[in-house]
Amino acid sequence: MTLDVGILGYRFMGVAHSNALARLPMFFPDAPDVNRDVLVGRDEDAVTAAADRLGFDRIATDWRDVVDDVDVFYNLGPNHVHREPSVAALEADTAVFCEKPLAPTRSDAESMAAAAADSTAQSGTAFNYRFVPAIQYARNLVEDGVLGDIRHFRGRYLQDWLVDPDAPWSWRNDAEMAGSGALGDLGAHTVDLARFLLSDVAGDVERVSGHLRTFTDERPVKGGEETRPVTVDDAYSAQVGFENGAMGTLEGSRVADGHKNAHTIEIEGTKGALKFDLERLNELQLLTEGDRGFQRVLVTDQDDPYVEQWWPPGHALGWEHAVVHENYEFLTAVADGGSFAPSFEDGLAAQRVLDAVQRSDERGEWVQVD
Amino acid sequence: MTLDVGILGYRFMGVAHSNALARLPMFFPDAPDVNRDVLVGRDEDAVTAAADRLGFDRIATDWRDVVDDVDVFYNLGPNHVHREPSVAALEADTAVFCEKPLAPTRSDAESMAAAAADSTAQSGTAFNYRFVPAIQYARNLVEDGVLGDIRHFRGRYLQDWLVDPDAPWSWRNDAEMAGSGALGDLGAHTVDLARFLLSDVAGDVERVSGHLRTFTDERPVKGGEETRPVTVDDAYSAQVGFENGAMGTLEGSRVADGHKNAHTIEIEGTKGALKFDLERLNELQLLTEGDRGFQRVLVTDQDDPYVEQWWPPGHALGWEHAVVHENYEFLTAVADGGSFAPSFEDGLAAQRVLDAVQRSDERGEWVQVD
Amino acid sequence: MTLDVGILGYRFMGVAHSNALARLPMFFPDAPDVNRDVLVGRDEDAVTAAADRLGFDRIATDWRDVVDDVDVFYNLGPNHVHREPSVAALEADTAVFCEKPLAPTRSDAESMAAAAADSTAQSGTAFNYRFVPAIQYARNLVEDGVLGDIRHFRGRYLQDWLVDPDAPWSWRNDAEMAGSGALGDLGAHTVDLARFLLSDVAGDVERVSGHLRTFTDERPVKGGEETRPVTVDDAYSAQVGFENGAMGTLEGSRVADGHKNAHTIEIEGTKGALKFDLERLNELQLLTEGDRGFQRVLVTDQDDPYVEQWWPPGHALGWEHAVVHENYEFLTAVADGGSFAPSFEDGLAAQRVLDAVQRSDERGEWVQVD
Amino acid sequence: MTLDVGILGYRFMGVAHSNALARLPMFFPDAPDVNRDVLVGRDEDAVTAAADRLGFDRIATDWRDVVDDVDVFYNLGPNHVHREPSVAALEADTAVFCEKPLAPTRSDAESMAAAAADSTAQSGTAFNYRFVPAIQYARNLVEDGVLGDIRHFRGRYLQDWLVDPDAPWSWRNDAEMAGSGALGDLGAHTVDLARFLLSDVAGDVERVSGHLRTFTDERPVKGGEETRPVTVDDAYSAQVGFENGAMGTLEGSRVADGHKNAHTIEIEGTKGALKFDLERLNELQLLTEGDRGFQRVLVTDQDDPYVEQWWPPGHALGWEHAVVHENYEFLTAVADGGSFAPSFEDGLAAQRVLDAVQRSDERGEWVQVD
Repeated sequence: MTLDVGILGYRFMGVAHSNALARLPMFFPDAPDVNRDVLVGRDEDAVTAAADRLGFDRIATDWRDVVDDVDVFYNLGPNHVHREPSVAALEADTAVFCEKPLAPTRSDAESMAAAAADSTAQSGTAFNYRFVPAIQYARNLVEDGVLGDIRHFRGRYLQDWLVDPDAPWSWRNDAEMAGSGALGDLGAHTVDLARFLLSDVAGDVERVSGHLRTFTDERPVKGGEETRPVTVDDAYSAQVGFENGAMGTLEGSRVADGHKNAHTIEIEGTKGALKFDLERLNELQLLTEGDRGFQRVLVTDQDDPYVEQWWPPGHALGWEHAVVHENYEFLTAVADGGSFAPSFEDGLAAQRVLDAVQRSDERGEWVQVD
Repeated sequence: MTLDVGILGYRFMGVAHSNALARLPMFFPDAPDVNRDVLVGRDEDAVTAAADRLGFDRIATDWRDVVDDVDVFYNLGPNHVHREPSVAALEADTAVFCEKPLAPTRSDAESMAAAAADSTAQSGTAFNYRFVPAIQYARNLVEDGVLGDIRHFRGRYLQDWLVDPDAPWSWRNDAEMAGSGALGDLGAHTVDLARFLLSDVAGDVERVSGHLRTFTDERPVKGGEETRPVTVDDAYSAQVGFENGAMGTLEGSRVADGHKNAHTIEIEGTKGALKFDLERLNELQLLTEGDRGFQRVLVTDQDDPYVEQWWPPGHALGWEHAVVHENYEFLTAVADGGSFAPSFEDGLAAQRVLDAVQRSDERGEWVQVD
Repeated sequence: MTLDVGILGYRFMGVAHSNALARLPMFFPDAPDVNRDVLVGRDEDAVTAAADRLGFDRIATDWRDVVDDVDVFYNLGPNHVHREPSVAALEADTAVFCEKPLAPTRSDAESMAAAAADSTAQSGTAFNYRFVPAIQYARNLVEDGVLGDIRHFRGRYLQDWLVDPDAPWSWRNDAEMAGSGALGDLGAHTVDLARFLLSDVAGDVERVSGHLRTFTDERPVKGGEETRPVTVDDAYSAQVGFENGAMGTLEGSRVADGHKNAHTIEIEGTKGALKFDLERLNELQLLTEGDRGFQRVLVTDQDDPYVEQWWPPGHALGWEHAVVHENYEFLTAVADGGSFAPSFEDGLAAQRVLDAVQRSDERGEWVQVD
Repeated sequence: MTLDVGILGYRFMGVAHSNALARLPMFFPDAPDVNRDVLVGRDEDAVTAAADRLGFDRIATDWRDVVDDVDVFYNLGPNHVHREPSVAALEADTAVFCEKPLAPTRSDAESMAAAAADSTAQSGTAFNYRFVPAIQYARNLVEDGVLGDIRHFRGRYLQDWLVDPDAPWSWRNDAEMAGSGALGDLGAHTVDLARFLLSDVAGDVERVSGHLRTFTDERPVKGGEETRPVTVDDAYSAQVGFENGAMGTLEGSRVADGHKNAHTIEIEGTKGALKFDLERLNELQLLTEGDRGFQRVLVTDQDDPYVEQWWPPGHALGWEHAVVHENYEFLTAVADGGSFAPSFEDGLAAQRVLDAVQRSDERGEWVQVD
């Protein structure tokens, strides 16, 4: 059986997933066969050119023509376009893989998760960092009890592309289209990793105190003289409490000068601790019982997660490899009928935390996640 | 003129300050002459032995006999002993240098600051990290506008000496004696550095959302079979807002496995950024306009703050050097009648923030600092 | 025009180059069209399976049937198989891309370079690290004079896969087949980077003092009870002098415990300095005039070499991307008739230095490179 | 008994040792009593001022008046003044502690070692880095077999104070006075650490291949218009062979831009490895059997060498603390008649290696150390 795939979106994420599909046969030969069937976008010329480059058989300019016509639908558009096509696909029992955050609002996310629950088809949320080998390895350690009882979680995602107040406006600065700013864009990843790494041992995030800030109120439109208002946060922070009593601090910013893609995770338990930095994604800093200091582990050995499929020890993987692993797992689940996480349910779970951060910021008080 | 000094406390901090006094003539020859006059402690034998080792002329077992009998009184006892002797000394117009946090409670700290305001004598609070050369250098950069408008402050102080639930009980675990746990012990330093580095350019901390946790409820008494209750926090976190709108996150823990004395400060502005780690106190990570990444600066050049008094470039200073610098500045101010910061007023300012963190944690909402 | 490619070798390097060919259309759309025509290996079953996975049209078990039947021949076999097929291909005016070191011996390398000089076809040597963006960026800086006059070069390549004396024997331990051990395998890369980065500004390596050591004299054959002798070096070091008087130290080891793929380059000049580590290949440590310390530069910006073809800033590339860039440049030169470096001439130039290291070690004295 | 100490030299090293003597009573109370008796220098005004600041009872302008008049003589002058006063002191059975390198020439060093052998008095060479806690800890690990059989030693000492060709001339640039440049000044430390760390398990350095370079042939005299010739090396490198077959590379430079005091040591064995950097002297990077990566160890725990005398875990020590430890050990040996290393014999052993490096460089071939 070959899975016909339709992808909505042909920029960064469209390329990342097209590339992932193209690489499966060589590196994951037991993955299902995939046909890059149709690329979807509104600008016919641009999408035609992209389809040619990305290896698709055909194009479409309306996702409505596609969602029930393929086996798997990738929804990689802006946040405000997540709900409708995803729900339509699920209603047609077409598997859906959707970019993060799952939706601009919690209610959208709830509709999507409900549609997934009602569908026979698989759903997936693009929390790709779960599939970085060092993160998978970290999770295995946590689940094996290597860190003991968890006391602290610290997640930060710092970027600097909006430090300049004249950096151009985009849909990512708009509340209608994006839902939120750094919170949804960056915080969704951090919240998902907190859940992925800790929920089995420390439980879920129960309560939250949030803080959002917009430093630049309007930004110039690219190529014009106009400006548009920034209606989302440039940065957020949050304090969280886990079910087991562990404490967490979260932070995300697009105005953190000097940081390109600094997604860092730190966890301390009663027996050990670990640190991860996306800018050095082949490494895990690890403290195990009896160690005098953090070991710098290159997670590139043959028995590290997914590494056997690639290169010998010490040969660095890149950001995109996590996307390949993610696609491998998702498509295998689609083909085999197995379960896949992160599903829309996981996307919604993250959204609930983001929503709680926003509510907390508005109210000036701690709020329960549900 | 020689300043007669009396010191209450002869353990860690007593040694650190005695050492600082002893080193001034060789390295800061323009410092006032100091006589290590009297060492104060309740255990006559122990204090006699310590006085001998630390070079004091005599001992006393009651601070009441000392505070009006010396020129400068160092109050290095536990937190609950800060107020009474300090106020007595100030009422006798004796200069007082007091350990941090200034007091276990805000009201104690207010009494002390009021006494300092009413006295002709100098007061000083032992926020020694202000006097690390890299921190002084950082402050100069911030004040010179090298970082531009401040957006983010991140301060963390992680230790691991209470990870083990069987680590022995001490007064630092007791609310009566210590006031708070990690919050007062570690957080006081972090809050003071936030104020020292940023208050001139970003204003003071205006509002706070706090989070405190105690993970181990009771601990064994050393050498006995008894346990005593832990009535303070093992760890705290806080989100803060500065007057200029900058965001901050603070955190302190005694149960952060793998960290010995990891006091880290990170600041991002619109033009640059910096990072400091007390475990590598000779270094500052610095990003200035036009840089592509953080420079690792060894703050050991001849024109770096205080460095000229010590060794050639690249010869690392240690933790204790900040204490020497602190004593140099304080005693010079005492002798010359100049001003000294951090004074009791600064100690109180930090205490107000700590108090706000505690109030916020109790109420589950953001609180104003005053 | 489509280039028909034949590849000899289907393990690590065969996969790396097949992958590179497969990725060109999506990421380097102006690259020539390439047809993965024929995969060559002696084990018919294994090569058939590999051809299927790697996307080749057909297989061959004898390179003689292939070298004049394709447009481009990749010689990725063991060192002792480099000369004969490469020369045959060049004599048939078929472009050849050959693994490094160019040959087990200098005389083999000379034959190959001579054949390349006599052929109308392109030759290329697989010094893939030239094509890491951070290395390209470093070279641009050096050529632009950012480092000033070069004083020091330091190149090390440390691995640990032979620390264990029971690690199995392979052709890489055999002088007949490999020529040398760490010297040819690792040192060839280091010597080539010294040439690539410095030859325009500091001249070539003129003279050499070498040191080779074998720590384990025999190793077990995998799966058997037999052992075979190790007739190559486990590690080498060298001191070198460049034409401009700069000093260099080189080192390579397969028994450097704790190091997986630690190829580090350090250069100091009169105006600046840089450091590179293959284990963190997205980074360059850079000191420019006026800096107080090394900047940690993430070489992942849009205007960094090759990066525009891939992902946004801060999204790490991996080891294999350099191989893609290398193939892009080589195949473009083949199609356009442009020049390509590193050619066989460059492969020979590196071999001359390796040969000098060996001669020096035998004689116990400095030797000239030519 | 109180030891009367005379010190020749009152700049950097004079201050460092005076400070060490002053700190012993407070931190090493079982050290012998020491009287800072006489400070020696040619410039009466300057030495008088220094004696006042450094706490000496009196001064002398001729070491001849001192060497038989004190219990311990510290010879901290330039290299060419090492031999005569040291020998005179030893002939008077006065204990001598001499700066490194022991002498400008091997023959001087031999005279000094012979004088030490003939004397009843202690001799010490100022290889202070032996007394850094992390180095002592490293040595204990090596001796306990934690690293297994030693394969590689790598020692580098990089500074940048002569990068600028207009940096002023000093005696350190003069062959008559200094003997050599970076080799003796920096390399002496590196060679001594190689011996200290490895000689018990890997044996001594047996043979050497050396490389010396002078990049700037003359330098301006400070404050004048004159220049003087530079007759020593700006940088050296060496390859070495240890008795057990381990390989070493050594390097030192005063023109390594971006490095202030970067003395780094790396050792790999069959079971583990370690790394040290003087710019982060409280840390040791350590790989032990079963570790997946180097642990970053803060060598500041109570049971680490000498640490108990100072501060709690995580409170960084500085460069000068090693000098205190060195003085403690030397003076204790003087008072108790115990043995002390590094003695003049150790100073000579290092000198033999430096001498071999120079001879090798002149001859262009490997030379035996003796």
